[in-house]
Amino acid sequence: MTSRTVARVAFGTAIAWLSLGLSFGQRADPLPSWNAGASKDRVVAFVEAVTTVGGRDFVAPVDRVAVFDNDGTLWSEQPMYFQLAFALDRVKALAPKHPEWKSKQPFKAALEGDMKTLAAAGEHGLLEIVAASHAGLTTDEFAAVVKDWLATARHARFGRPYTELTFAPMVELLAYLRANGFETWIVSGGGVEFLRAFAAGAYGIPPQQVVGSSLELKYELRGGKPVLVQQPKVAFIDDKAGKPVGIQKAIGKRPIAAFGNSDGDFQMLEWTTSTSGARLGVIVHHDDAAREYAYDRKSPFGRLARGLDEAAARGWVVVSMKDDWRAIHAPR
Amino acid sequence: MTSRTVARVAFGTAIAWLSLGLSFGQRADPLPSWNAGASKDRVVAFVEAVTTVGGRDFVAPVDRVAVFDNDGTLWSEQPMYFQLAFALDRVKALAPKHPEWKSKQPFKAALEGDMKTLAAAGEHGLLEIVAASHAGLTTDEFAAVVKDWLATARHARFGRPYTELTFAPMVELLAYLRANGFETWIVSGGGVEFLRAFAAGAYGIPPQQVVGSSLELKYELRGGKPVLVQQPKVAFIDDKAGKPVGIQKAIGKRPIAAFGNSDGDFQMLEWTTSTSGARLGVIVHHDDAAREYAYDRKSPFGRLARGLDEAAARGWVVVSMKDDWRAIHAPR
Repeated sequence: MTSRTVARVAFGTAIAWLSLGLSFGQRADPLPSWNAGASKDRVVAFVEAVTTVGGRDFVAPVDRVAVFDNDGTLWSEQPMYFQLAFALDRVKALAPKHPEWKSKQPFKAALEGDMKTLAAAGEHGLLEIVAASHAGLTTDEFAAVVKDWLATARHARFGRPYTELTFAPMVELLAYLRANGFETWIVSGGGVEFLRAFAAGAYGIPPQQVVGSSLELKYELRGGKPVLVQQPKVAFIDDKAGKPVGIQKAIGKRPIAAFGNSDGDFQMLEWTTSTSGARLGVIVHHDDAAREYAYDRKSPFGRLARGLDEAAARGWVVVSMKDDWRAIHAPR
Repeated sequence: MTSRTVARVAFGTAIAWLSLGLSFGQRADPLPSWNAGASKDRVVAFVEAVTTVGGRDFVAPVDRVAVFDNDGTLWSEQPMYFQLAFALDRVKALAPKHPEWKSKQPFKAALEGDMKTLAAAGEHGLLEIVAASHAGLTTDEFAAVVKDWLATARHARFGRPYTELTFAPMVELLAYLRANGFETWIVSGGGVEFLRAFAAGAYGIPPQQVVGSSLELKYELRGGKPVLVQQPKVAFIDDKAGKPVGIQKAIGKRPIAAFGNSDGDFQMLEWTTSTSGARLGVIVHHDDAAREYAYDRKSPFGRLARGLDEAAARGWVVVSMKDDWRAIHAPR
């Protein structure tokens, strides 16, 4: 070897060691929007436990399934579920074609912005509004309508598009889990086609990893071309005990990590964490009125009572948005 | 550089070129069980078209979704759907607990092996048998029962386990598509939990890429542990116009390739191939009585009439099992 070759090899080795040293020394925190503390430690410890080859709690990548509620877990849900805001806007847009709505509840309340009457109409009333405002459209048309709305509508308090009201710490967490071989799924009470319209862009979650509530679909030909038309009939409600059912229908295996924020997620967390091995259940607790909202036991949207009462005994992590999160929404 | 260094580099380069030459020269045929001919050419041409970067028909990997019917497309389906054979065996196993079945149709016919009466009971009668034989079990129990049955039951004509009656050319095709960036899905009229019990082992298709018919599931606690129990009520029938619906519910996007063998797959092929761009629709035609079975227009299982009539006009490939396939099932 000539001295020049030796020099080249030595230089190359130095660069390699330098890079290696930098990558160890400066290893980036994968969760920079999470404050140091027990919540962050437990999440990271779980991920390290299930990914450590040869460890007691190792889980093969094929079984690393993590499920996330959406409303209140991945983005805000106050002062009302964002899909309900969409449905109310849509009722207003469709009102000229439905003069009968002016005197028919719950549409009258929707048109007048009478939230009290609307709330009193309960789940049935809300489903009526969702069905009326979503049905008749093909799946392609519906996706376009949702995308248009998301591009133009603004949240009253924050003045930002709804898709900017995702939680930065959770978006980081999704990426961190995927970087560790997890498949990340949304399992939401919201409508599956509504979610799919933004889940890829907002969360990096493709349409086939979104589970949600759904309307019946009808296959038909329009102008000789096949379409799938949303029917005014609920096919599936992906909430409460429906969440483990929705998980089984779509995924066919039990997750090892589940993230929720309300009692609608209770059974999903229970289903996920009641087998042996390292399992992770996380409840996002909305306790930050200054930066977002503070609510739990008495909220009409995202009510959380049983989850708070039983989290400690069940080993679930309760994340305080106020204390555990450095940021809430993505910076402007 | 000393002469020894030069020699080493030269030797290394020679090895590299030699390997490269071999890998070009000996590039393995990805579909060795397919005879040369128009069917094979069209499948390969499609895959090359959608994977050629910069080509007119290029499709991004994220949208390379291929859907496969199972019965008659990925494995045999004669003299009856294999899941029906399973259900009949299960009715026999459960009969001691159901003395009333001895005199009650369609169970009486099932117990007596009276296929004529069973056939006359139609879809409703078959669903009754499937519901009675599948319901009451948890999803975990059901998977275990199916796996036990698959391990012990033998096909009457071939004397082999049913999982050995998958089609070797189609198993090759699944692997070929995945090697080209496709996500491969089963979209079957068969029961989703029945399919999941063997799809990973037989086809390399994970549970979350299986779409099928399903029973209602109920979430409940047994001995303090949550379970999902199969109910005696059909939730969804994934057949005919139900197939595009099942695809949208589970995948949320339109496939670019679809493979079927009966008129139950017609709408799935229509849905897949009626957009612009390179699209592939394939019908497996059972015309090989010697090696498997020959049937189409008059078969109670896997009836194929409209598909045959319209395939040419719609540009669908009709695969002759007799002429296009070198092998049918995997070698013993």
